[in-house]
Amino acid sequence: MSFKASVKEPVITLSAGPVAAYPSILQALSRPVQYDYDPWFQEFYEAVARKCARAMRVKEPALILHCEPAPGIEATAASLIGPEDTVLNLASGVYGKGFGYWSARYHKDMVEIEVPYNEAISPKAVAAAFKKNPGIKIVSLVHHDTPSGTINPAREIGKIVRDNNALLIVDAVSSFGGMDIHPDDCFADVFITGPGKCLGGAPGLTVMAVSDRAWKHIEKNPKAPFASALSLKDWKDAWSRKKPFPFTPSVAEVNGLDAALDQYLDEGPEKVWHRHALTARATRAGIRAMGLELWAKSEAIASPTCTAVRVPKGLKDTDIIAAARAEYGVVLSTGRNDTLGKLIRIGHMGPVAEPIYAVVAVTAFGGALRKLGRRVDIGAGVEAATRVIAKGKA
Amino acid sequence: MSFKASVKEPVITLSAGPVAAYPSILQALSRPVQYDYDPWFQEFYEAVARKCARAMRVKEPALILHCEPAPGIEATAASLIGPEDTVLNLASGVYGKGFGYWSARYHKDMVEIEVPYNEAISPKAVAAAFKKNPGIKIVSLVHHDTPSGTINPAREIGKIVRDNNALLIVDAVSSFGGMDIHPDDCFADVFITGPGKCLGGAPGLTVMAVSDRAWKHIEKNPKAPFASALSLKDWKDAWSRKKPFPFTPSVAEVNGLDAALDQYLDEGPEKVWHRHALTARATRAGIRAMGLELWAKSEAIASPTCTAVRVPKGLKDTDIIAAARAEYGVVLSTGRNDTLGKLIRIGHMGPVAEPIYAVVAVTAFGGALRKLGRRVDIGAGVEAATRVIAKGKA
Amino acid sequence: MSFKASVKEPVITLSAGPVAAYPSILQALSRPVQYDYDPWFQEFYEAVARKCARAMRVKEPALILHCEPAPGIEATAASLIGPEDTVLNLASGVYGKGFGYWSARYHKDMVEIEVPYNEAISPKAVAAAFKKNPGIKIVSLVHHDTPSGTINPAREIGKIVRDNNALLIVDAVSSFGGMDIHPDDCFADVFITGPGKCLGGAPGLTVMAVSDRAWKHIEKNPKAPFASALSLKDWKDAWSRKKPFPFTPSVAEVNGLDAALDQYLDEGPEKVWHRHALTARATRAGIRAMGLELWAKSEAIASPTCTAVRVPKGLKDTDIIAAARAEYGVVLSTGRNDTLGKLIRIGHMGPVAEPIYAVVAVTAFGGALRKLGRRVDIGAGVEAATRVIAKGKA
Amino acid sequence: MSFKASVKEPVITLSAGPVAAYPSILQALSRPVQYDYDPWFQEFYEAVARKCARAMRVKEPALILHCEPAPGIEATAASLIGPEDTVLNLASGVYGKGFGYWSARYHKDMVEIEVPYNEAISPKAVAAAFKKNPGIKIVSLVHHDTPSGTINPAREIGKIVRDNNALLIVDAVSSFGGMDIHPDDCFADVFITGPGKCLGGAPGLTVMAVSDRAWKHIEKNPKAPFASALSLKDWKDAWSRKKPFPFTPSVAEVNGLDAALDQYLDEGPEKVWHRHALTARATRAGIRAMGLELWAKSEAIASPTCTAVRVPKGLKDTDIIAAARAEYGVVLSTGRNDTLGKLIRIGHMGPVAEPIYAVVAVTAFGGALRKLGRRVDIGAGVEAATRVIAKGKA
Repeated sequence: MSFKASVKEPVITLSAGPVAAYPSILQALSRPVQYDYDPWFQEFYEAVARKCARAMRVKEPALILHCEPAPGIEATAASLIGPEDTVLNLASGVYGKGFGYWSARYHKDMVEIEVPYNEAISPKAVAAAFKKNPGIKIVSLVHHDTPSGTINPAREIGKIVRDNNALLIVDAVSSFGGMDIHPDDCFADVFITGPGKCLGGAPGLTVMAVSDRAWKHIEKNPKAPFASALSLKDWKDAWSRKKPFPFTPSVAEVNGLDAALDQYLDEGPEKVWHRHALTARATRAGIRAMGLELWAKSEAIASPTCTAVRVPKGLKDTDIIAAARAEYGVVLSTGRNDTLGKLIRIGHMGPVAEPIYAVVAVTAFGGALRKLGRRVDIGAGVEAATRVIAKGKA
Repeated sequence: MSFKASVKEPVITLSAGPVAAYPSILQALSRPVQYDYDPWFQEFYEAVARKCARAMRVKEPALILHCEPAPGIEATAASLIGPEDTVLNLASGVYGKGFGYWSARYHKDMVEIEVPYNEAISPKAVAAAFKKNPGIKIVSLVHHDTPSGTINPAREIGKIVRDNNALLIVDAVSSFGGMDIHPDDCFADVFITGPGKCLGGAPGLTVMAVSDRAWKHIEKNPKAPFASALSLKDWKDAWSRKKPFPFTPSVAEVNGLDAALDQYLDEGPEKVWHRHALTARATRAGIRAMGLELWAKSEAIASPTCTAVRVPKGLKDTDIIAAARAEYGVVLSTGRNDTLGKLIRIGHMGPVAEPIYAVVAVTAFGGALRKLGRRVDIGAGVEAATRVIAKGKA
Repeated sequence: MSFKASVKEPVITLSAGPVAAYPSILQALSRPVQYDYDPWFQEFYEAVARKCARAMRVKEPALILHCEPAPGIEATAASLIGPEDTVLNLASGVYGKGFGYWSARYHKDMVEIEVPYNEAISPKAVAAAFKKNPGIKIVSLVHHDTPSGTINPAREIGKIVRDNNALLIVDAVSSFGGMDIHPDDCFADVFITGPGKCLGGAPGLTVMAVSDRAWKHIEKNPKAPFASALSLKDWKDAWSRKKPFPFTPSVAEVNGLDAALDQYLDEGPEKVWHRHALTARATRAGIRAMGLELWAKSEAIASPTCTAVRVPKGLKDTDIIAAARAEYGVVLSTGRNDTLGKLIRIGHMGPVAEPIYAVVAVTAFGGALRKLGRRVDIGAGVEAATRVIAKGKA
Repeated sequence: MSFKASVKEPVITLSAGPVAAYPSILQALSRPVQYDYDPWFQEFYEAVARKCARAMRVKEPALILHCEPAPGIEATAASLIGPEDTVLNLASGVYGKGFGYWSARYHKDMVEIEVPYNEAISPKAVAAAFKKNPGIKIVSLVHHDTPSGTINPAREIGKIVRDNNALLIVDAVSSFGGMDIHPDDCFADVFITGPGKCLGGAPGLTVMAVSDRAWKHIEKNPKAPFASALSLKDWKDAWSRKKPFPFTPSVAEVNGLDAALDQYLDEGPEKVWHRHALTARATRAGIRAMGLELWAKSEAIASPTCTAVRVPKGLKDTDIIAAARAEYGVVLSTGRNDTLGKLIRIGHMGPVAEPIYAVVAVTAFGGALRKLGRRVDIGAGVEAATRVIAKGKA
């Protein structure tokens, strides 16, 4: 690499994503770039789409969009939400809120349930919304609102949505692969994830499971984009080795996705989820033992894939992050938009969803505070984390 | 890789793109995936945007979109073309024609110059169009219409466009990096390319040079997308290490782009263009010596980065391609849409823009025809190719 | 890479080895370097040793030495040949002859059968040698004497050696993996190969199958090295996950070897041999059609993994090689020692053991001669090669 | 990778080597394998040999042997020590002691200074040895006896050796690149290191600086090996692009070495040493704060690249290592031979020579003891470590 930076590369990245990739995925990214119309690649692509489906525990090969999930979610809004649709938008954080803006470009009207960004959506409120607005056709839920590090009860909400015969979009970008959530678990009609978070891959793709009900709705949507970056339809059949691609797929990213799925399936999803959860639990214990406050209102809704910590009064988030980076080479994340400045996020995704990184996180966080002049008992933090780990490993 | 295909991976890929990537780029794709908000990555990203600019010989850091060029061009249409704009669309091939459909979503009206898809746009016709339609505000030109393998006179056309005070979009996706073309050469206001063709990288990014005049027009366009996959504005300042990314950049692709630019600049652009041109010339000589017909009406407009060969009467393009693949493991490309079935394309892009691959192409093409029962003098083809090479190397 | 060379990297390498590695092996070389005493690595190492055995079609896990085969063969001489041993050295080329010098450091005496370096050892001569020297204890045979590109009849010779109750060393470095030869086929007691030739891997390891008979002889050899680079004994049990390594294994090379074996076994040995043989046959046809002379006295003994071509009178080998490199970026090999200056070698090993590379070789060779002022009918050469390929693929 | 292990791959490797490699080196290992006789590779190899010299701060291009350092040291003994030579062997650990056994194969006689394996050689003792044995011709010193984690005063000893006109062999395998030691600093005539320890590369090569005086001695040694794995002479001039290789170099390892040197030189040696030393210091503080005992008799001789900790009474080393591996996925090393069972080693080499890994080490070590039933104050350990780091970073 000819580039020489003025700062050192990080030592350990505990970001909320993009996350450090597994070695097997980095190797896969360096596979030859094959021609998309060659029969080998067409067969490979189909196999990857099918492997996505196996990981998501659905039958139909996945829909892969060749962009990272943010535009993938935008495309979902554009494709699914028609001019006659009433949308119920569930906003427990920045990403949930943000979906409403995209929705507004396409829907007839929108009902929104918004809760403070350290709380979760209540299934009861969803049920009540349906009662009040029987015309709701589409519901959008962010399972893990990453900028808050909180989890919504997708299963319960999904059940209600299905019972009310509406379509459910679930953004599971930063939860799938790190915890037990799949499209059918939560009655999702469009389930959106990607390789760059808990699967420990590179960002650059959107992986989706789209139900037949959703496809039918898209077909009927007169405004659903085609020949467009915002189109789901264009790619509907592209998984098939016999069908052309609407435009060039990101070959290297598909190579990486293939390896990300192997990594996940070969280790065993249950084992992967367990180490995500254990790392998060240990981190939370350590953070609290240092006298810091978790952002999530209750541990029950704290994400197993990302721990949000309230910024101590009198300190700036960016100073803490800079101090952890300078002292330990450890990368942490700030909040986003409304949570920016209020919290710091510690990612537990992919290869760093391992208990030892809870210790790393606690130390780097505590060390940063100390560097900024605060008295922090890092030892107590690490002790607490290790005790959780010892129990979790027993 | 756990995937086992029913067909062998190709031996040599001479496609029209995605192309085989240089080894240095494959290695770069396996660099660690860094967190986009980390200062190291922000500095790196800026350096890559500046390096793009150096390669394109412009001053401003490049605009990088995190999708392959097709949606990148769509985004250009969406961002640049406003509801008051008259567009002159220049169509000498499938991609040129296609731009008109995107334009139609945004423009007030459109003038189109269309020529047979084995010919080039005449600058005179462009001048005449301006005379007849002085209101033309935006002109779109595909420099190398890949599905035809033909080159348009971008410099001459660009001069006319600029003299008429209109804005010029140049799709140089499959010409930049393989021949002498840069934004300022052709007065392009939006110059679009990507790493996956002549730069020999992976597909998955769009690299653009956008003039101040174009940015001003975008700013004034009331319909220019924002917070969208179709937005150029979102990414305008993202190159700066001090500015946030609107959504997650494709980190691995940026790593690859960095190496693609090093590969190009370190070898020396003039040397790179020379081997593209020589390989194409040798290929054309070999193809003709076997009694086959080039698609391009004249060699003068045949692309130095891709040779299109007319499908011999009585044969099917896909049969020829399958035969070359089966007999030699060599990958060739069909046409697209209107040129589909009529021609076969031999790519000379990136690492296979080396004279020996002209011999490979001629042999694989000739061998395929022979396998399909035609009498072909492969020896004559190779002889002709080698004589061109010997002269070109002298 | 910070290194900037004064010459370009080659375009295509058709050397006699080290050869271009398969992409899957390059990827494997970039796997994490694991600690040799970690249980994961110990288990992995054992699996690789067993996979070597599967490829060599023997039962016992292979002996892996952490050096390329030349010192591996020296270690074999040092370990196996004791001060009371009479050795029969079979020399049909530079490597065969060379073994005698190593042998001389350890043996009591040596009988040598030497034939011109473009001929093969006759089994009859071996039988006669035993008759004349019933005390022969150890026989050394180079299966493919790479500097000559010729193959010895290992099966027939091996049978005679076994019948005479002697021990047989077979150097199959550049034949195993590219043709049908395995330890038991030829009654080898020490069968030596490596990943850097027909397996298309990196050089840097020696892979051996050692029979119980050979181990017993080594055990009895009072001079057999231990705690030494020349020791086979040190590594005898190192394949076992339960046994320590005498010194640090070359972890990255073991990673590469693992992938090389997968590449070979997954494709299927018979298919691999077939494409080696077909490429060699096509190359020979092409070379002869250009009026050039093969080095091997008869095609029957010409190696399917390397074609040696006599240097045309009046020309220098190095000039031909430099011309092929300059004109086409194609790498060929000279001879070694006694064959140096007399022949040029075209390797057909690993990823370039594909018929299209016969065309590449013929063209580059012919083009080089033409550049040096000779009249050569490259077309005829390529025609001849393609006809062989067409038949072989039919 | 088709291999599925019964144990998980490690999470973090803190071994005494082979160590985890830097990402840049893993990428370099996947560079194309070039033919060793191609002019590009010959030029590259020379550049790497020169870059080694730059790193070692000597003038002559380095001698590279294509084996890991243990056989490289054996080759040094074989090449340098002649049948008339009296050797002074300095043994402060297992490796120092071991050299004596190799020496015994070649020397006339040997004087040995042996100290307990947790102490360092005293320069005074060396001076006294020379006084008593003026015929000493060759002295062998292990700078960092890795199985003890202790450093010998190489500068002082080297001065005495040079003053006494003897030749000095310095094994700096696990110190060079991690602390301030170079051939000329310590008057080494043969200075031996490799890429697989502090340079954070793969094992598989030996890198040496050999003085003119040493070469002269080798030239005069009638028993110096040639055409052998034990020969230094064979490779003396192989660095030159104009000279042939005696046997095939390990191309992939040379690619890796090139990147290892870039990594070291680009970061800046002083910075690299500093982080090694700081990590070691923090580790020692943490270990002691948990009430554990360092192996080294004094911190002054404790290596900055590896911390040896005495195994607590009543516990088994392998149990501790297994517990750290099971609980945290952290890899530690046992001792070797005479130190086996007595100590545990924590490596600080290459990419893990970063302060945060001191915390990882302390936690994993403490956690392991706790798992084995001991009461350990991990918090106190981490506190102590972080305080050292905070000071060191200030």
